[in-house]
Order: sequence, then structure tokens, then C-alpha cells
Amino acid sequence: MPDFSNLQGAEALKATFRRHASGVAIITAATDAGEPIGFTATSVTSLGSNPPLVSFNIAQGSSSYAHLCPGKLVAIHTLGTDNLELAQKLAGPKEQRFDGGYEVGPESTPIFASASAVLLARVRSRHEVENNAVVVLDALEAFENSASKPLLYFQRGYLTVGERLADNY
Amino acid sequence: MPDFSNLQGAEALKATFRRHASGVAIITAATDAGEPIGFTATSVTSLGSNPPLVSFNIAQGSSSYAHLCPGKLVAIHTLGTDNLELAQKLAGPKEQRFDGGYEVGPESTPIFASASAVLLARVRSRHEVENNAVVVLDALEAFENSASKPLLYFQRGYLTVGERLADNY
Repeated sequence: MPDFSNLQGAEALKATFRRHASGVAIITAATDAGEPIGFTATSVTSLGSNPPLVSFNIAQGSSSYAHLCPGKLVAIHTLGTDNLELAQKLAGPKEQRFDGGYEVGPESTPIFASASAVLLARVRSRHEVENNAVVVLDALEAFENSASKPLLYFQRGYLTVGERLADNY
Repeated sequence: MPDFSNLQGAEALKATFRRHASGVAIITAATDAGEPIGFTATSVTSLGSNPPLVSFNIAQGSSSYAHLCPGKLVAIHTLGTDNLELAQKLAGPKEQRFDGGYEVGPESTPIFASASAVLLARVRSRHEVENNAVVVLDALEAFENSASKPLLYFQRGYLTVGERLADNY
């Protein structure tokens, strides 16, 4: 039996996720005043297809959280290796995240059209747990670009995928 | 502006996640009768570190769902490329998932000690949305093996990571 006594609580969580890779996405929306907000996220995941739902996790203390109320339209951008700079920019200083331009989509939602895909989704509910929240959204419609290799986040760095090992799930 | 009119609803969701890669994990627990249950999951994500929380998504129709009640101890195994067969086995027929053996951890929780890391976590709450649920767990303690390349799921296949493109987040 492995020895579980060395890594407890937050250290245990950290050690576990050091072994786990994630896809990288950018989430954008407009404030009620029409200003763009957005951030890089590694927690975007599907929550079933009938009806089509998607979720991501966010800290309630994040400046974006107050704007992501139920009913808000959100653009979830999946990123490929071509989008590395975009991932870095949207994880950087807030006042520079929309420098260099973006397109304005439905309900003033900022769109980065170079993303590998862009899903428009509407916030359905927020499930608050301690200082964090799971945001659940209804998937509405999407745009996809020609395939590029997906961008990954692993051990504080950006990577791309390597060798395909097996098909099927 | 990209044209969003071609991909709607479930098709939009599917197209988006075709562009998105995920880390692969195995989730196990024991039923109240002590029988092992488990499945391969690509939705495991961190939900904050203070307190340390983790979440995953599951269909309420899954045979495992009834057993993952609040209070249940769960083992979240992150997988590396060495664990490809384990990922496939735990995504395969239910009656064969524990063939070939496993170790019995605290509260009869099945443990695959070859995983890249194993996090013991206790179900805190379940957030049901339509036919699905987000399961939120408190991270308790973990065991980690020496690093192996993380296992990824992308476009109906298993892959490993490739080139590191940049540091920092």
C-alpha cells in the first residue's frame, strides 16, 4: 500500500495536479457596460451533451466573477499551439489583455477569431463552494478553425501533444 | 466575425471539445458493501487550494453515481503513459475493471499504486444539473510516484505530451 502520510491537504492537491495535464482555453465576456473581460483557464470541461452543457471553475475573488452572472453570454475559446501568445496575454496583466485587438460578437462578447474553436455559451448556474465556484453554461453555437495541435498546460508551462499511443476510449 | 450559424447546440459542444485535450484520471471508491467501483475520467480539475478542493463531472445515470454520496472516500488517480492499459481497462466493461488486481486502501477504497499520483478525497457536495452532476471533494492526502509523462485524451485517442513551448502561466 502506498504511503499517503507525506502529502496532506493543499500539498496533496498540488502534488496530484503536478502529474496532470490540461487543455488551455480563454474565456471572455462583456461587462454590462460593454467592457471586455477575459482570462486563461485550464478547467473547461464538458458536462453532458443532452442538453449540451459546459463547466469551468473560478475563484469568487476573481475580478471577472461578478460579471459572470446567470444569463451572461460567454465565449469559450479552445487554443492550439498557434495561440500560445494569446494564452500568455490573457493570463497576464488585466489592462493589457485586449491590446492588439479582438472582434466584437453577439451581446458585445469579445471574440478572438484565431482560436482553434470558439463556443458561445450562456451562464446557467453558479455553484459556490468555499471561495470558489463551478460555473455551468448552456452551449449555444460554435465556430471552428482548421485543426491545429491543441495547447496544453503542465507543470507551469505550455506544451503541445506528442505521439498518439492508442485509439478508442 | 466568425460564422457561428453552422454549429448549434450539441454539435457546437462536440466541435469545441474536438479541439480540446484533457488529462486522464481514474476514479475509484468502494460501495457500502465494500465492492470496488471505478471509471476513467477526463474532467478532473482543481477547485482552489484553500481549502483544497477538487471536482469532476459525471452522468447521474452512471452506475457509479449512486455510490458517490457526500462523505464517500474516493481515490483520484492521475495517469502517465505507463498507465495506458489501466486507462483502457477502467473505460472498458464494468465486470473486468478490477481484474488483474488492486490494493485496498482506507475505507476499502481500491488503489492502483502504479498511477502517477493518487489523491484521497472525500465527497463534499454534488451539484446536479439536468442529467449530470459536478462532484466536489475535499482533498485529504496523496501519494506520488516518480514522474512519468502524463497521459492525455484527445480526439478519441490516448496521447502523451510533446515539446515544451514556454514556461510560466
